[in-house]
Amino acid sequence: MNARIEADYLIETPDDPARAAEVMAGEQSSGTFVKLPGETDALLQRAAARVERLEVLGTVAAPSLPCAMPDRGTGYTRAAVTLSWPFENIGPDLPNLMATVAGNLFELRPFSGLRLEDIRLPGAFAAAGPGPRFGIAGTRRLAGVAEGPLIGTIIKPSVGLSPEDTAALAGTLAGAGIDFVKDDELQADGPACRFEDRVRAVMRVLNDHAEWTGKKAMYAFNLTGEVDDMRRRHDLVRDLGGTCVMASLNSVGLTGLLALARHSELPIHAHRNGWGALSRAPMLGWSYPAWSKLWRLAGADHMHVNGLGNKFSEPDASVIASARALMDPLFPDKPCIPMPVFSSGQSAVQPPETYRRLGSADCIYAAGGGIMGHPDGPAAGVQSLRDAWDAAMAGIAASDYARTHPALARALETYA
Amino acid sequence: MNARIEADYLIETPDDPARAAEVMAGEQSSGTFVKLPGETDALLQRAAARVERLEVLGTVAAPSLPCAMPDRGTGYTRAAVTLSWPFENIGPDLPNLMATVAGNLFELRPFSGLRLEDIRLPGAFAAAGPGPRFGIAGTRRLAGVAEGPLIGTIIKPSVGLSPEDTAALAGTLAGAGIDFVKDDELQADGPACRFEDRVRAVMRVLNDHAEWTGKKAMYAFNLTGEVDDMRRRHDLVRDLGGTCVMASLNSVGLTGLLALARHSELPIHAHRNGWGALSRAPMLGWSYPAWSKLWRLAGADHMHVNGLGNKFSEPDASVIASARALMDPLFPDKPCIPMPVFSSGQSAVQPPETYRRLGSADCIYAAGGGIMGHPDGPAAGVQSLRDAWDAAMAGIAASDYARTHPALARALETYA
Repeated sequence: MNARIEADYLIETPDDPARAAEVMAGEQSSGTFVKLPGETDALLQRAAARVERLEVLGTVAAPSLPCAMPDRGTGYTRAAVTLSWPFENIGPDLPNLMATVAGNLFELRPFSGLRLEDIRLPGAFAAAGPGPRFGIAGTRRLAGVAEGPLIGTIIKPSVGLSPEDTAALAGTLAGAGIDFVKDDELQADGPACRFEDRVRAVMRVLNDHAEWTGKKAMYAFNLTGEVDDMRRRHDLVRDLGGTCVMASLNSVGLTGLLALARHSELPIHAHRNGWGALSRAPMLGWSYPAWSKLWRLAGADHMHVNGLGNKFSEPDASVIASARALMDPLFPDKPCIPMPVFSSGQSAVQPPETYRRLGSADCIYAAGGGIMGHPDGPAAGVQSLRDAWDAAMAGIAASDYARTHPALARALETYA
Repeated sequence: MNARIEADYLIETPDDPARAAEVMAGEQSSGTFVKLPGETDALLQRAAARVERLEVLGTVAAPSLPCAMPDRGTGYTRAAVTLSWPFENIGPDLPNLMATVAGNLFELRPFSGLRLEDIRLPGAFAAAGPGPRFGIAGTRRLAGVAEGPLIGTIIKPSVGLSPEDTAALAGTLAGAGIDFVKDDELQADGPACRFEDRVRAVMRVLNDHAEWTGKKAMYAFNLTGEVDDMRRRHDLVRDLGGTCVMASLNSVGLTGLLALARHSELPIHAHRNGWGALSRAPMLGWSYPAWSKLWRLAGADHMHVNGLGNKFSEPDASVIASARALMDPLFPDKPCIPMPVFSSGQSAVQPPETYRRLGSADCIYAAGGGIMGHPDGPAAGVQSLRDAWDAAMAGIAASDYARTHPALARALETYA
């Protein structure tokens, strides 16, 4: 068993990269900028972070970030660095893991770039969080979808609908055969659409619909807020027969998500809004594999990964790398594998490529305009997405499948 | 009263900046990428974000961040943009404010740069958090420091000391006349230095010392962790006569800090580790004035601002701008002004410049090597910092003051 915590970084430095890596290790463990009496060899042996690996990747002429240390005339060296820490420094503790692997080091003087690429945790660290209690299998069970993706959508307009408007739209979507619906991240408990009123109105419609059809769409109610409010809101959703709750990860923080997850009896749909601030600068911040591991262990059942051909700035390769990273087990006996959520500008066009590159249909596949904007209405929108996935999973070209599947045919005309 | 929430951004875009600003406003409120039936004029009137201001600042030839939208041949335009939202969209709710002003927009396609510069909140938003319960006056009272800065230090080595080692060091520091001591952010409740054991050992020493001298150093115990653990740890500190607790903001999140702050009967020392990932790319993320406002309202009593001539990458002007931003009242009747904490590479050298540029001595001024590394020992280290501040506050040059103040004289020789 690996008794140490490991983290991989991409660094860029005007300094000697080996020396820069030692500065990182020092800052994030027992280092001091003046040698102190208490800094004994025994203490260093016990608590110091170690540089486990340093691989120079090349140099660039200009610094990626403003850097307080001047160039020595050698340009800025990029390197892959792995640091390790004794498990005993923090124990199985997610909030303090964050301070250890992603704390002050981003600001260190020798760096013109520093990005956390991945994290590996010793087996004993599995005790730090509940992990997803539902994950893929539990979500499929509650949504009544045995195979293929859950076809989903987001309540739009994002904000401004009343509880009754929202319920009416949820009814339309349920009537269209949707598997999954989520609140927008902008809609939690605003005075114009109170959480409790919205849940009551929506669940009345979805429960009625389920009684007639036997199928209850999974609705992720956005309960983002303070701890006591989130727990109370969760209980309301559960008591009214709801099957999912949603939280904005960067808003509630690790401690907030842990407080919800330890209480929750429903899948937690984890929204990553704000992620761009942590990730869009290529030589700063976090990569998704590293970042998502913390939230997976903290209890996220569904995690957003954007979508191919999205309306945002993320390249397709990054989207797929994120989704595939979620399939990588965190611990052999506690894999913490959440369901990836594809969304943003999705329609019946992207499923073949998504399936080919993901290698799996274990996902929530959410479209907004791709469903509501279908020229034959939302039911045809939902059907077009199912058709597109069915074709992809059967290895049939979408254009061939469309000949006998009119909803798909119209969608391909509309969105391609 | 301003009934809308406002946020200022610095943007960079290859698109027409007015159109790009409308994309931001749409994404962060009622926009949809296909016009939907529910998107009525009445709804837009009620819920849409508005572009309140757009000021073009100039153009640059190359994009600051990788950008999915191609340059139209006009380069990349930088502009200052102010958006506003109806208060009713979210109500007085800090976690959902974050999703609104700093959510998906960082990833939007038209932007090669997007940074949140400032936030202004309507008066009713003051209900969203408790604010600092102690702030400057409460901290001064508990620390027994009526004027001038609290001279402080950080327990170093950062991690690896046992509870007894930590207590012994705290005793040395108390004997040296220190006002304020903090745990390192890497030390919370690791198996090698349990929180409870550390608090018991340290408070025994500090209480003993206070009984003899009448002065109890304020010690910020790092209780970062899950909600129930933080509350339990807080109670232990309070019960043993401690006067401060510390939390890593980016580890606990807004929801975590609110849970602590609503419970806390002690000042909360708010550590910003991880801040670099949010701020170091000049055209991405958060500025400190915007970011700190959320934590101030959530209950931070002390906030880190780095220090002049620090060991990190931040320029001095940014340090001072951060500290001064904390003095800006959040609401007329609830100013939420925390005590700024200067630290990182500080010694008796920087106080004159710090005082001159801050215009105030209402701060915690923390030095590590600047105290423990003083050639005449820690008591001389503490004295040298007091001397430096006394001189600055009296308008006397440090070199003059040093003639009659030997601790300062030795410090200036050592650290200048």
